[in-house]
Amino acid sequence: MTQNIYDDPGFFQGYSQLNRSIGGLDAAPEWPALKAMLPSMHDLQVVDLGCGYGWFCRWASEQGALDVLGLDVSEKMLQRARDTTSAGNIHYERADLEQLDLPTCTYDLAYSSLALHYIKDLAGLFATLHAALKPGAHFVFSIEHPIFMAPRNPGWLIDHEGRKRWPLDSYQMEGERVTDWLAEGVIKQHRTMGTLLNALIDAGFSLRQVNEWGPSDAQVAAQPALAEERERPMMMLVAVQR
Amino acid sequence: MTQNIYDDPGFFQGYSQLNRSIGGLDAAPEWPALKAMLPSMHDLQVVDLGCGYGWFCRWASEQGALDVLGLDVSEKMLQRARDTTSAGNIHYERADLEQLDLPTCTYDLAYSSLALHYIKDLAGLFATLHAALKPGAHFVFSIEHPIFMAPRNPGWLIDHEGRKRWPLDSYQMEGERVTDWLAEGVIKQHRTMGTLLNALIDAGFSLRQVNEWGPSDAQVAAQPALAEERERPMMMLVAVQR
Repeated sequence: MTQNIYDDPGFFQGYSQLNRSIGGLDAAPEWPALKAMLPSMHDLQVVDLGCGYGWFCRWASEQGALDVLGLDVSEKMLQRARDTTSAGNIHYERADLEQLDLPTCTYDLAYSSLALHYIKDLAGLFATLHAALKPGAHFVFSIEHPIFMAPRNPGWLIDHEGRKRWPLDSYQMEGERVTDWLAEGVIKQHRTMGTLLNALIDAGFSLRQVNEWGPSDAQVAAQPALAEERERPMMMLVAVQR
Repeated sequence: MTQNIYDDPGFFQGYSQLNRSIGGLDAAPEWPALKAMLPSMHDLQVVDLGCGYGWFCRWASEQGALDVLGLDVSEKMLQRARDTTSAGNIHYERADLEQLDLPTCTYDLAYSSLALHYIKDLAGLFATLHAALKPGAHFVFSIEHPIFMAPRNPGWLIDHEGRKRWPLDSYQMEGERVTDWLAEGVIKQHRTMGTLLNALIDAGFSLRQVNEWGPSDAQVAAQPALAEERERPMMMLVAVQR
């Protein structure tokens, strides 16, 4: 079973204070790019893997999705989602994405935001998803970038010109990375970009778009701290089609 | 026109002394991985973009390719190729890959080894190639990895534990990178992995495999200097299909 760090009281407390937790989709700087990769929600059967507070589920419902299933391993996240982002056509269920059981050939869109880097058996999850999607259906997700995840001791260096540099190491050594982020001992699964993309291809998906997200000029002007995201990508946005 | 650094006397002299120049395909540590991505050569019409000394052209010919066209911008490289790797079904021609003119629907395989990072208009080249390939034909290439190319001042750092780290910066800033490698002022074109893959997809190719090459245990045992290639990828191997 995936580590359920989100139900750790300290983690949950810290997470609930992040901009993106308070402000929802519009507070996530990558959301405009991710949204641009999505099909029209109208009349779609949607599943959200790692739905968190349910911001995306509510957005999909408001955009005309037929039914939205929000899945998360964290009971606390789901409780908050049910309390604040519910609608008649949204259903929240607890699920471990490592042991996912979905009806076959049912969904028009699978979505996942920053959850898949916690998953060990990604090939298994992709196979399950491929079976659960209808032919032609879309799978759009964000995931932490391997460049961000690979280092044993991640962190910026400042060079003699004052430029931030991101020291990379261990890129080819796939597997667990344990970091302290909001809580101690958060376990993520590093794999190379090649491994991730090949797993999608091997599961039968066609690659449609890969976006190693970086901020726009307007975003940096409004939020200067985002400038460092131009030095190295922190996340990848990927769109594939069954 | 692409910078023709290979005809610079100093560069050519330095290049001719590289392991891979003396030992051919088997001296390039990524060759086994690249070869595994190739279809059977039997009866194929092959074009090699940036053929250099013609090692691949000769190999393809020996493996049963029907005809092999080797293209390079460097007259010196072509002369050496004609002198040392010729065969009745290999034709060497001078060509600028930025201005490529190929017959449509003709080739079963396009191949390129470590040449495409010199190309500015990669989208244009991919469109030309897509038109020159038969439906179902393969395009297999290696290219310098964006992680390797991005930094303004590329080079290793050694941390306090003696581990090599590769400081990355400027990843999102695409465009020219000027480095001194065998000669001063070698111009390469940095683009993100996303931009490269999307250009292939937009040209109409289906992605088949992405390999961010790293050495095997046996290769590191035989050539300990290769160990650093595990810390950050230096090249990408990509297979797509029309």
